[in-house]
Amino acid sequence: MKPFEEQYQVYLQAFEAALRKLCEEMQYEPALLTESMRYSLLAGGKRIRPVLFFAALDALKVPYASETDCALALECIHTYSLIHDDLPAMDNDDFRRGRPSNHKKFGEGNAILAGDALLSLAFDLLLRSCERGEGHIRAARELSRAAGAEGMVAGQSADLFYEGKEAGERELAFVVERKTARLIAAPVVMAACLAGRDTEAARTFGNALGMLFQITDDLLDVKGDEKTVGKTLGKDSAEQKLTYIRVYGAEGAERLADFYADEAQRALAGFGGETGFLKELVNFVRGRKK
Amino acid sequence: MKPFEEQYQVYLQAFEAALRKLCEEMQYEPALLTESMRYSLLAGGKRIRPVLFFAALDALKVPYASETDCALALECIHTYSLIHDDLPAMDNDDFRRGRPSNHKKFGEGNAILAGDALLSLAFDLLLRSCERGEGHIRAARELSRAAGAEGMVAGQSADLFYEGKEAGERELAFVVERKTARLIAAPVVMAACLAGRDTEAARTFGNALGMLFQITDDLLDVKGDEKTVGKTLGKDSAEQKLTYIRVYGAEGAERLADFYADEAQRALAGFGGETGFLKELVNFVRGRKK
Repeated sequence: MKPFEEQYQVYLQAFEAALRKLCEEMQYEPALLTESMRYSLLAGGKRIRPVLFFAALDALKVPYASETDCALALECIHTYSLIHDDLPAMDNDDFRRGRPSNHKKFGEGNAILAGDALLSLAFDLLLRSCERGEGHIRAARELSRAAGAEGMVAGQSADLFYEGKEAGERELAFVVERKTARLIAAPVVMAACLAGRDTEAARTFGNALGMLFQITDDLLDVKGDEKTVGKTLGKDSAEQKLTYIRVYGAEGAERLADFYADEAQRALAGFGGETGFLKELVNFVRGRKK
Repeated sequence: MKPFEEQYQVYLQAFEAALRKLCEEMQYEPALLTESMRYSLLAGGKRIRPVLFFAALDALKVPYASETDCALALECIHTYSLIHDDLPAMDNDDFRRGRPSNHKKFGEGNAILAGDALLSLAFDLLLRSCERGEGHIRAARELSRAAGAEGMVAGQSADLFYEGKEAGERELAFVVERKTARLIAAPVVMAACLAGRDTEAARTFGNALGMLFQITDDLLDVKGDEKTVGKTLGKDSAEQKLTYIRVYGAEGAERLADFYADEAQRALAGFGGETGFLKELVNFVRGRKK
């Protein structure tokens, strides 16, 4: 196996090529709709969900290069959620990855529609993949439930609900499990579906990795380097957001990060296949600087 | 066959029973999310898309009672589109079917999320139905394309784009074909898919019926009775919206309604099956008072 960073680039480049192709094929009218969808899809980012999907397929010996539709669907859903979360009626963020957020660039109405279009596109890609059989239908349903009112939407709804209210460990876990962890677990669970495997270990691993991802995100907000992270830091506490720092303190959050990193590593033992890359991915997320 | 109005009630009641069951099963947290989804789903309306779907299946001798998932998906997508269209950044409507619109009742953030959740739910219902075979996957893809950036979202995006701009016949046809007609054609096309038939006649019929539906909607805005229609009339012209009245005048719109009604009836000849109810549905839409 290649060193971790190199292998990450292999998965990333495979995904970026598929994404560029998708963006070139999109020729929706009005042109502004296509432009606003592309703007957010091509804004960069770590692409952790598609990379995780490819890596989990690779671990299970499923040729990942022929599963780009599912990988694109994952990123479309993630991107739609960022566009809608940034809206003034939600988290009201003017910037995303160092550029104006979608609604600052294209206006609120267009941003809502770009999100709606990306969610529909995600499902069209998934439905196209369903023609390949039972495992793909199972995988698609996993993603639809992770994204909807049982998953990500519920997490964002709860996050809005707790704004300015007394909230502690239980509320925080509810929000993060749904808003973040479900969509990070989804690619791993989907890979298990496509490999015709049981999904339990995949779900436990993905969920722990997702929780870890959010905790380290919250930690970066207090201890990160603005230039490396690429966004304004200290914003969470200024806005009194419900974060791991607020609920557990920075030290408590570090311990909880270790807990979830351990849980993810343990779950990998039951995942089967070649889990070397996934193990290193856990360490990478635990120690991330951006 | 039963008289038209009675048969409409048969299809409607079958749908309403399935919808009530779905709404009872929804137990998403936070409760506010479930409440806002139910509020708009249970706001009534003619349910023309599910009724059309059941009627088209019935015409083609496909047992419609076992296809409630697709019917529910159609109404979930229609309902999500109303919630998002009513938002201040879009059409800014405070009322819908005589009640406060979703964002007036639950706030903008929650309304955006209720719409997102309904769109995800629609696709989860469609994916569940995909387990039943090839025809269902084809049907689901028809709906996903009718709803997304090739269809309804493009229509709403163009509608926003032309606001306050010079726009005529071509622009109006573009908007209405996508924003309205595609989602009225979808149930008929989906029924053809489930029956394993060619979709051409279904598409021509559904599209003509959809155009007719919008023209008569615009006509009601100038000649309807407020009590019967159940909403404030004369609003379109006051807001200088792009309507058939503005582009063709009331008389021109009447003639165009006749044109599309004829086209729909002609297309029915190629649809196959027992099209008595669908024929009467065209006449009903042509002469509707609400």
